[in-house]
Amino acid sequence: MGFVLSGILHLPGAKLTTDGEACEHGKAGKSQIFWCTLGLLRNRCGQALQSVQIISRRAREEGCGCRVPCSSSAQEPPWSVAAVILGDGSGTKLYPLTKRRAGGAIPLAAHYRLIDVVVSNCINSNITKIYALTQFNSTSLNAHLSRAYSTVGLGKDGFVEVLAAYQNLDDEGWFQGDADSIRRCLWVLEEYPVEDFLVLPGHHLYRMEYEKLIKAHRDSNADITVVLSLSENQRRPYSSSLKLNSKDQTLDSRRKLEGAQAPLMTTGGGSFTTDGAQDLRSMGIYVIKREALGKLLLQNLPHATDFKSEVIPGAVSMGMKVHTYTFNGYWEDMRDVEAFYQANLGITRKAPTSQGFNFYDREHPIYTLARCLPPTRITGAAIKDSVIGDGCVLNRCKINGSVIGMRACIGDGAIVEDTIVMGADIYQIDEDFRWCMTKKPCAAVPLGIGEQTQVRRAIIDKNARIGKNVKIVNADNVQEGDREESGYIITGGIVVVLKGAVIPDGSII
Amino acid sequence: MGFVLSGILHLPGAKLTTDGEACEHGKAGKSQIFWCTLGLLRNRCGQALQSVQIISRRAREEGCGCRVPCSSSAQEPPWSVAAVILGDGSGTKLYPLTKRRAGGAIPLAAHYRLIDVVVSNCINSNITKIYALTQFNSTSLNAHLSRAYSTVGLGKDGFVEVLAAYQNLDDEGWFQGDADSIRRCLWVLEEYPVEDFLVLPGHHLYRMEYEKLIKAHRDSNADITVVLSLSENQRRPYSSSLKLNSKDQTLDSRRKLEGAQAPLMTTGGGSFTTDGAQDLRSMGIYVIKREALGKLLLQNLPHATDFKSEVIPGAVSMGMKVHTYTFNGYWEDMRDVEAFYQANLGITRKAPTSQGFNFYDREHPIYTLARCLPPTRITGAAIKDSVIGDGCVLNRCKINGSVIGMRACIGDGAIVEDTIVMGADIYQIDEDFRWCMTKKPCAAVPLGIGEQTQVRRAIIDKNARIGKNVKIVNADNVQEGDREESGYIITGGIVVVLKGAVIPDGSII
Amino acid sequence: MGFVLSGILHLPGAKLTTDGEACEHGKAGKSQIFWCTLGLLRNRCGQALQSVQIISRRAREEGCGCRVPCSSSAQEPPWSVAAVILGDGSGTKLYPLTKRRAGGAIPLAAHYRLIDVVVSNCINSNITKIYALTQFNSTSLNAHLSRAYSTVGLGKDGFVEVLAAYQNLDDEGWFQGDADSIRRCLWVLEEYPVEDFLVLPGHHLYRMEYEKLIKAHRDSNADITVVLSLSENQRRPYSSSLKLNSKDQTLDSRRKLEGAQAPLMTTGGGSFTTDGAQDLRSMGIYVIKREALGKLLLQNLPHATDFKSEVIPGAVSMGMKVHTYTFNGYWEDMRDVEAFYQANLGITRKAPTSQGFNFYDREHPIYTLARCLPPTRITGAAIKDSVIGDGCVLNRCKINGSVIGMRACIGDGAIVEDTIVMGADIYQIDEDFRWCMTKKPCAAVPLGIGEQTQVRRAIIDKNARIGKNVKIVNADNVQEGDREESGYIITGGIVVVLKGAVIPDGSII
Amino acid sequence: MGFVLSGILHLPGAKLTTDGEACEHGKAGKSQIFWCTLGLLRNRCGQALQSVQIISRRAREEGCGCRVPCSSSAQEPPWSVAAVILGDGSGTKLYPLTKRRAGGAIPLAAHYRLIDVVVSNCINSNITKIYALTQFNSTSLNAHLSRAYSTVGLGKDGFVEVLAAYQNLDDEGWFQGDADSIRRCLWVLEEYPVEDFLVLPGHHLYRMEYEKLIKAHRDSNADITVVLSLSENQRRPYSSSLKLNSKDQTLDSRRKLEGAQAPLMTTGGGSFTTDGAQDLRSMGIYVIKREALGKLLLQNLPHATDFKSEVIPGAVSMGMKVHTYTFNGYWEDMRDVEAFYQANLGITRKAPTSQGFNFYDREHPIYTLARCLPPTRITGAAIKDSVIGDGCVLNRCKINGSVIGMRACIGDGAIVEDTIVMGADIYQIDEDFRWCMTKKPCAAVPLGIGEQTQVRRAIIDKNARIGKNVKIVNADNVQEGDREESGYIITGGIVVVLKGAVIPDGSII
Repeated sequence: MGFVLSGILHLPGAKLTTDGEACEHGKAGKSQIFWCTLGLLRNRCGQALQSVQIISRRAREEGCGCRVPCSSSAQEPPWSVAAVILGDGSGTKLYPLTKRRAGGAIPLAAHYRLIDVVVSNCINSNITKIYALTQFNSTSLNAHLSRAYSTVGLGKDGFVEVLAAYQNLDDEGWFQGDADSIRRCLWVLEEYPVEDFLVLPGHHLYRMEYEKLIKAHRDSNADITVVLSLSENQRRPYSSSLKLNSKDQTLDSRRKLEGAQAPLMTTGGGSFTTDGAQDLRSMGIYVIKREALGKLLLQNLPHATDFKSEVIPGAVSMGMKVHTYTFNGYWEDMRDVEAFYQANLGITRKAPTSQGFNFYDREHPIYTLARCLPPTRITGAAIKDSVIGDGCVLNRCKINGSVIGMRACIGDGAIVEDTIVMGADIYQIDEDFRWCMTKKPCAAVPLGIGEQTQVRRAIIDKNARIGKNVKIVNADNVQEGDREESGYIITGGIVVVLKGAVIPDGSII
Repeated sequence: MGFVLSGILHLPGAKLTTDGEACEHGKAGKSQIFWCTLGLLRNRCGQALQSVQIISRRAREEGCGCRVPCSSSAQEPPWSVAAVILGDGSGTKLYPLTKRRAGGAIPLAAHYRLIDVVVSNCINSNITKIYALTQFNSTSLNAHLSRAYSTVGLGKDGFVEVLAAYQNLDDEGWFQGDADSIRRCLWVLEEYPVEDFLVLPGHHLYRMEYEKLIKAHRDSNADITVVLSLSENQRRPYSSSLKLNSKDQTLDSRRKLEGAQAPLMTTGGGSFTTDGAQDLRSMGIYVIKREALGKLLLQNLPHATDFKSEVIPGAVSMGMKVHTYTFNGYWEDMRDVEAFYQANLGITRKAPTSQGFNFYDREHPIYTLARCLPPTRITGAAIKDSVIGDGCVLNRCKINGSVIGMRACIGDGAIVEDTIVMGADIYQIDEDFRWCMTKKPCAAVPLGIGEQTQVRRAIIDKNARIGKNVKIVNADNVQEGDREESGYIITGGIVVVLKGAVIPDGSII
Repeated sequence: MGFVLSGILHLPGAKLTTDGEACEHGKAGKSQIFWCTLGLLRNRCGQALQSVQIISRRAREEGCGCRVPCSSSAQEPPWSVAAVILGDGSGTKLYPLTKRRAGGAIPLAAHYRLIDVVVSNCINSNITKIYALTQFNSTSLNAHLSRAYSTVGLGKDGFVEVLAAYQNLDDEGWFQGDADSIRRCLWVLEEYPVEDFLVLPGHHLYRMEYEKLIKAHRDSNADITVVLSLSENQRRPYSSSLKLNSKDQTLDSRRKLEGAQAPLMTTGGGSFTTDGAQDLRSMGIYVIKREALGKLLLQNLPHATDFKSEVIPGAVSMGMKVHTYTFNGYWEDMRDVEAFYQANLGITRKAPTSQGFNFYDREHPIYTLARCLPPTRITGAAIKDSVIGDGCVLNRCKINGSVIGMRACIGDGAIVEDTIVMGADIYQIDEDFRWCMTKKPCAAVPLGIGEQTQVRRAIIDKNARIGKNVKIVNADNVQEGDREESGYIITGGIVVVLKGAVIPDGSII
Repeated sequence: MGFVLSGILHLPGAKLTTDGEACEHGKAGKSQIFWCTLGLLRNRCGQALQSVQIISRRAREEGCGCRVPCSSSAQEPPWSVAAVILGDGSGTKLYPLTKRRAGGAIPLAAHYRLIDVVVSNCINSNITKIYALTQFNSTSLNAHLSRAYSTVGLGKDGFVEVLAAYQNLDDEGWFQGDADSIRRCLWVLEEYPVEDFLVLPGHHLYRMEYEKLIKAHRDSNADITVVLSLSENQRRPYSSSLKLNSKDQTLDSRRKLEGAQAPLMTTGGGSFTTDGAQDLRSMGIYVIKREALGKLLLQNLPHATDFKSEVIPGAVSMGMKVHTYTFNGYWEDMRDVEAFYQANLGITRKAPTSQGFNFYDREHPIYTLARCLPPTRITGAAIKDSVIGDGCVLNRCKINGSVIGMRACIGDGAIVEDTIVMGADIYQIDEDFRWCMTKKPCAAVPLGIGEQTQVRRAIIDKNARIGKNVKIVNADNVQEGDREESGYIITGGIVVVLKGAVIPDGSII
């Protein structure tokens, strides 16, 4: 007889019961080594097998004994949960913003990065065990997370931990999808005896009190809860929306109530539908019971790589209890450049409304890397419906409906409208530029936006150098255009000036 | 014969000479065993020999062995130095800004506090052993220093440490002056084997590369170097200026050169003069050799409480080598409200010039508590020659020649001119105020500056609530007026609205 | 009409009612100036004035918006509480351990300082708003607290904040007692809208789950709850014990139950008694309702300096609801050297029992400054019933029933019994000592305990240097003796070698 | 035609010369937009254009302006250098220690991890820009580095930054070798304008003052300096040793002098030899000029993956100035389990000698994750020539010539000889185990080493559970054996009990 304690036991020839115990041995002569987080194993003769990885990695690394050890189920709140943030975002559709960055690292709203929103939602919901899985262009995201959240108070057992893709002796592959990345990190994720995992895409803009979601999940005793958006601020239908079963009458009638719940059912063949409930879209957010997660990823669907198309249907067809939870607040999936652009501009309106995300909610602040930049200096500016980041220098310019990022410099007579200026990483002042000019041959174009330049409906990525008398107005209303060699790309009619690009004086785009 | 170690003194009946060595044995059979770091002892006639602490307190507290141990003179750079910042400022003259704060904790330039400037000068000069002595209204200063500088990288043996006034069994008194406060903390200050102490007032605004000062001090082999200002941006002569001896011809002719040095001499009676060099003022900055400091404060002048009037003259009259060092840069001693007001406004001019302090020097940044506020939101503003802090909300207002601090809210139609608005500690938004209004009896006046209000030539301290249609213009040009019960004071013609004051709608000041 | 500022309440002629409201105007022409953080005020017509303390100091200092703002009563758990630790300890009776330290900073159990125990109790009880009031010899305590607890995860609104004694314009006095120190810091303590304050002496050794205490306090709706110890490990009766009223029959019968509660009553004249319940001693721990604290300290007993003798009797006589809470666990008030000695030795027994404090409780760890010392190196040792700190060097010695602190060095042939060796602040190795010997006149006696030396029933304070062939055995069984000039004191029959003392080779004590 | 350097250089009409410069301009009137991190550019006239590196990634991420900006060459010390630590180690040969860990994360000397030694060497040499490249089983290494070194004071421009393997749009491959991993991270590594890179394997045990190496490198004006070991504590010749040219007479005669330098030459065909100098082995440590590194990895050898076999020979054959630097101190390449075992035991001898690494060097401490474990409790132990980590519990046992790691528990009557016990991640005490026994099916074998058990010449990995009356003595002197399914492996005659393995009571190995 074998035992498995919480944890993921993969025991060839063993069978995992639904209550998380391996109760039967196989006969295979060849032994296999496996790991679990909890327990010890015995073979059917009652002989102790090996309990591997009985001690969580967290505890292992722990310095102080300061952190709650893994096994103290008595200590943990009954609703303990760990968040798993998928940090990569949709690299392709956000190009060129993801040319050198993960989706989660794109600058947002002058001071933030995309992933800050989801991490802050967790912290504000008192979920302080946060893992971020990263792989694609992950360097700057890794650095941001480890710097921004090492000093935020996450409590004595809290952390934001980056789990970067890695190789090991048995397995040299990269993460192959959301489900696969979680599978490969399960041994780390399970170090704490949480009851549920909260899977979160890292590039969404919304404010959710996850406690309510967790409570609904637990109240319904679901194995998996899928979060659906009722938001109508989405401009386009998703083809990939998760559909609810047409039988779900109650859902339809209640669907305007945030938090409404219903079981999710398959219509056969593992696909879902919700006839008459087309505007419900899966947000890619899942709450999954610890045991269910292990069982699905390691036992039943060991090759599944995607949650939406494989794991969730698989769970439904296996008879797991899969429920839905509806969310009615503002939600923007920054899945492409246009969505990102709209979400940013949404914060410039006067009153934070459902049309835009509110970064000024005192009770639910958005955290990011703390900085100590000097204040913004304005020698003259007429500014309307805009947000201005820290440490800017604005010289007799006009700014309208725009987001101006940290350390942005805007020259005399410049006009910036409906534009996201991401700012700069260093603060270039006149002296700096003069030094540059005199000490050595230099970029003729300083950081920022030059004098008399006009920019409209554009995204100016970090550290771009826009010269004088430039017009970035897309006068011909080009919708798509790849001018990467000239430093910009047009997508959805929005001109995106690449990070670090130089646009010479007098250019017209 | 006695023994002096670095630190460990084993001295049966020994006598200590002025150069810190025990040179004479007592005859008493009974050995006295004690230890010190300081190196001053008295003879065996029973006078307490003082000075303890051969093992540095730093080392004692040290967790890691991470810090350079105290005795490793070989390791230390030959020019090692510790800074001693006097954090209290001149409480009385800065009233009401110092009503509940130390001088060093007054908000400066939208994002900073006064003491940040001096601490940053130290860090930028690679002086990373920094002690701040505090006593008067020290609570917020202590908290600011320990939070702002615990995460700044100060290197493996660097620190910013607050030394708050304390009692002990022998001595229950408070610090009695700059010299006395250093005397009482000498046992802590001497934990590292630095060669020199750099004594710095904490409420000045200037940028000095202290390395140059230290080098000049060491090149001249002075016991004490007194820093004199050549700055002409001082508006008023000091009556208390340190005077140089009229014999010092060379000083006079060189006095426009920063870094010029000259010996300081007395004219007798312990007072100094520099006939014909009246514009040289002591900045209250001293570099003092370790040995000289101990000798002066503990042996020769054990009751002196003030450096300028007692210790420096005393040192000169004792024959110590007291030199001067002249500093020619921008320097503002924020000794009273008007000086503080001018220094703040000095940063609003377009080009940082000698008329104002430059917070935008990339090579010599000013550090402070790092924050992660949201960007400033502007629904409409015409702004001229001003600096705007982080997280403000500006609604269709005019701002001219002003410093607008963090989280300041300015209402529609308001006009702010030549004013320092210190901002708020929390971010109050409409929802907050509405909640306030409905949930409980509430301040009718929200944080910030109300609609249609005009403010001119004023200082609005933190968290003030200025109502609508208020005029703070000092129309009668009152120079001094105490209206503390109404929430403001007028000093030097500047209206200072108290921290947290409420000025009702329609008030006229 | 009165004005209220946040923080600074200026209310000419107002009176503060017992429910924290100013309800009546005075007539006196002379304005009364006071402050409160607490309440709301009404004018005499019952009309709401202003709610004060809208802005907390904490919020003010806050960098990030990261901390929960003060007014969000909805956010706070209903039982929110702040701990106020009195860090000074009883300086006199712990002499010479308190010669240069606050009581809370005395090294304990090889790795800790006294105050760590109480701070850890708070953290383990999820009380993360912790203030430590310090004044006496506070320098090292301040440094310890700010270093040890700046990196411990205290959550997004948690902190351990040192409140050092300070002067202000109105008041230049030191703290005059536990009640007075809290009064002088009330304006800081009240920055968060906690419901209750938990007052804790900082020099006790016990493990209490304060949540239970808080719950009992709230369940009984007491204004003040006084904690009484049922512990029988106290060796001496307290003369100053708080007595319960003899009418309290139920208490007597229940008194062996931890957590038992009873109302506390006066027998008149403000004194208490519990005839027949003599072994109940007040632990000096109080839970006090926010409103009650302000009312007692500011209004009713504005000159009281001591809780036990003034404030508690005063509260009872005023008719406040004063209850008791009994605690039955191990408790040691390290009120003198002998108590400290016993408490330390209590941890050396094999099984942590009620006879000693258990530092090895995984669920309730004791935190301290995290360190990275090298492991202890043992070239040969026979060790029995002892605890050994980090980074020691033990050379062919015998250690029995002792506590050996960090970096202690014990020489060949040494015997250490029933002794507390506090260790050293730096790690002295042979090279170091040789350098010392050759470079300059040097302490002949290295750090630690020399070869062939015997120590029994002693406390060897930090950085002492005990030579070779020394006997510290108190052969004459002296009970009290002041040999401070020779580096030691005998108290209660325990030899205490002073911090940094040097005991020459061959000495016999 | 444009070239791309590290980073993205797009220079229409520019040509990049072999020395990393773009040397030809295009003619097109069309604007040129580019950026790069690497080089300088020249126009067609050979005139230097712009030095790129305009924006460093570091600066980009930087929060505060706190860090020295990239372009301030005047600020940087003339010998600025960044360390690049290769964290993976030799995974295969260190199996099973690397079963779930990177080589750099293996526990060392009771308190440390392998990589701490090299990181500490850097910090002690004042090299505070430290990158660690990780890929293989990197999770725990990443976590260790980010936790251990986030709070160590690395100065205002210092950091230890993990660069985990990542994918991007153009390149989905893993790091292919030391040279390839550096190539893929060059764009990050070059963010600071350092002059030289110091390439360091992360799994070596030695203490080197890198300043001397850097100085020698710069004094010789070498492009690359290769460090050779003169150490004779290596037990086996390396087949892969780098050979010096036989013409190098001077080297031979000087080879006992640490720091001796000589040019490295090829003997043709890109291979090296040093006839008569066979005992000089390359340590895998290289100092490489910034320009040389970029040129080699990006231009001349864009497909080379290994330094020793490809890049260094390539550099020599290209005529670059490749010098050697000899190191004479203790050096252990922990390339396999036996080497790791020997290096650990080397620290247990009494006097740190050339036979072992000295962790007790006060001037050059080894840093690691700071912890706050309780002291080690010993109810009875006879210990000889061993080191004992923090928080152990030793019950009447014998320990001889062993390294006992943190939280190790050793039972009554156990004998541990010549063994590395890595300890445990959590502290298991009796109560804990009892809880385990009663609450649920549980490991019958507690953490640690059971009663009456004997262990000799073994490595007990973390969290192993060795039962009672076990003998791990390798009585049959097996040299190699894979019993992984039973929880251990024998390699080089050393029994390695796997991490978390359970060895039942009475087992004999």
